[in-house]
Amino acid sequence: MVNHKWILVARPEGLPKLSDFAWREETIPALAQGQLLVRSVMLSLDPAMRGWMARDTYVPAVELGTVMRGGAIGVVEASNHCDFAVGDQVQGLLGWQEYFLSDGKGLAKLPALPVPLGARFGLLGHIGFTAYFGLLELGQPKAGETLVVSAAAGAVGSLVGQIGKIKGCRVVGIAGSDAKCDWLTKELGFDAAINYRTENLHKALKTNCPKGVDIYFENVGGKTLETVLNHMNDFSRIPVCGMIAGYNQTEPEPGPGNLFQIIVHRIKMQGFIVTDFLSRSAEARQELVAWHAAGQLQYRLDVTEGLSNAPTAFLKLFDGSNLGKVVVQVSAEN
Amino acid sequence: MVNHKWILVARPEGLPKLSDFAWREETIPALAQGQLLVRSVMLSLDPAMRGWMARDTYVPAVELGTVMRGGAIGVVEASNHCDFAVGDQVQGLLGWQEYFLSDGKGLAKLPALPVPLGARFGLLGHIGFTAYFGLLELGQPKAGETLVVSAAAGAVGSLVGQIGKIKGCRVVGIAGSDAKCDWLTKELGFDAAINYRTENLHKALKTNCPKGVDIYFENVGGKTLETVLNHMNDFSRIPVCGMIAGYNQTEPEPGPGNLFQIIVHRIKMQGFIVTDFLSRSAEARQELVAWHAAGQLQYRLDVTEGLSNAPTAFLKLFDGSNLGKVVVQVSAEN
Repeated sequence: MVNHKWILVARPEGLPKLSDFAWREETIPALAQGQLLVRSVMLSLDPAMRGWMARDTYVPAVELGTVMRGGAIGVVEASNHCDFAVGDQVQGLLGWQEYFLSDGKGLAKLPALPVPLGARFGLLGHIGFTAYFGLLELGQPKAGETLVVSAAAGAVGSLVGQIGKIKGCRVVGIAGSDAKCDWLTKELGFDAAINYRTENLHKALKTNCPKGVDIYFENVGGKTLETVLNHMNDFSRIPVCGMIAGYNQTEPEPGPGNLFQIIVHRIKMQGFIVTDFLSRSAEARQELVAWHAAGQLQYRLDVTEGLSNAPTAFLKLFDGSNLGKVVVQVSAEN
Repeated sequence: MVNHKWILVARPEGLPKLSDFAWREETIPALAQGQLLVRSVMLSLDPAMRGWMARDTYVPAVELGTVMRGGAIGVVEASNHCDFAVGDQVQGLLGWQEYFLSDGKGLAKLPALPVPLGARFGLLGHIGFTAYFGLLELGQPKAGETLVVSAAAGAVGSLVGQIGKIKGCRVVGIAGSDAKCDWLTKELGFDAAINYRTENLHKALKTNCPKGVDIYFENVGGKTLETVLNHMNDFSRIPVCGMIAGYNQTEPEPGPGNLFQIIVHRIKMQGFIVTDFLSRSAEARQELVAWHAAGQLQYRLDVTEGLSNAPTAFLKLFDGSNLGKVVVQVSAEN
């Protein structure tokens, strides 16, 4: 039986390139006692993977010559492991490959939920929990406050804005195309959306946030952060989820020159990583599913068929051409 | 009866200059009903005044042509006000002047305390409360943690480090001369002090903070912040008290290029202004006085005699030549 996988062969300089990955075929060995074989069904692709390719951060870098790290959902095809049976749906860091030989560690059986498989990535999992805990725990939104979200049409940002609406905030998104902005305001209920490629962000914030900004959910960093900082209210909050503007810089971009605003407006700027909230995922899952069922929380998947196209799909994250959560359909669900 | 005062006549570009101020003499009018006349005894000079001279921030800028704003302690010389009697010691924004004609608003009678007058500025008041609430509320120090303080030989920084020691932290100060560093380690009990003018800050932090940094009390900003960010531990805190490195820049200096560390290490960076904690000043006063009485908390005053020298004394704050809290002795205490 044959497995295909993408190996990381070079650390990215600037934008990741297709040539940073190499396609490998290998024969899957027979299962030893205590092992199971998982067939990957859907692989999640995320901006954070750029960091995993490059260097040690909150997790060690992917070693060159090994399979690229990635979270995926799969089905147990064969099992010599007492906790897993053939047909079980599981989730874990299966990697960019078709089959994953596992001893069960780090693998979780999917809890039964009234949502399609794709919702595990688009609504729940690290995407949904990042939006949920980042906004609610660090952002502490209150009804009537103004929430600004950057990368607002992204997987996390689009959920953040909708949760902000559920909590009674005025929600303004920043995104990179008119189509994305339309989606935010016309389908997701954002109060306004700013196309940062065609509009003057400073003026647009002034217009769309007449009472200033109480929460800035930060996915971008760089110049966007600098501009939004000048609109923050006293005692405002900046949950720092990502800084994608800097991920592909070969030289670190200078930070905002106006950090003094943090003092003037007593701003709380705080970074987080979703895994810090793992122990509370049941609580988030329950609310996210309920909001989705009530029609208050939508998600969108950007699905690429076939593992062989994974690097191409991954690059969409950095040119802004994806619409929704980027996933690869590795094999059929059933 | 004659009053002398310093008028703000120009907004600073870069470093404040003596010519930004003009010396004025005026006759003090007779007291109306409900007014009192305060003779200034001791005037506090602080880095934040650079901001007051330049632009609206958390308080409006000082208007050109009016007396320069400043906190001072004085004695009531004459009173037509039922709440104040001749001889009362009072504190308030008396300004850079010898006499202050007041209707009583914003003026507080000094509570009786077993400390010399100078302690009202060096140990208590906005200096002491800034150190106290900034470190304890935002920094949340725990025994065994490592605290780094920039501008550590300054009025606030020197208190912050000593309070850190009281709370059981390893305390490392950053200061601008060997004499200041010696004072920190030999007299104030800091575990280590780094002379940023002669040492490589990155290497010195590595040596002196072997377990990383849990709290960075930020008075400086700029390159210092960037360097310390690379040493912060997971879930560390950065109370942002000041960013003096940028106060005299004509062009805003770029911020740190490594703000991504905020995510990697889940750092909480939070600005504050001491007046936000006004309602809790009794609590701070009590502890600060008790620590001082127990010999655990020292302060040092840098006293300049005579209001006419106020601008010269003020400039010391920006060339690092002051040793301790800068004040002007405007008149004799009794």
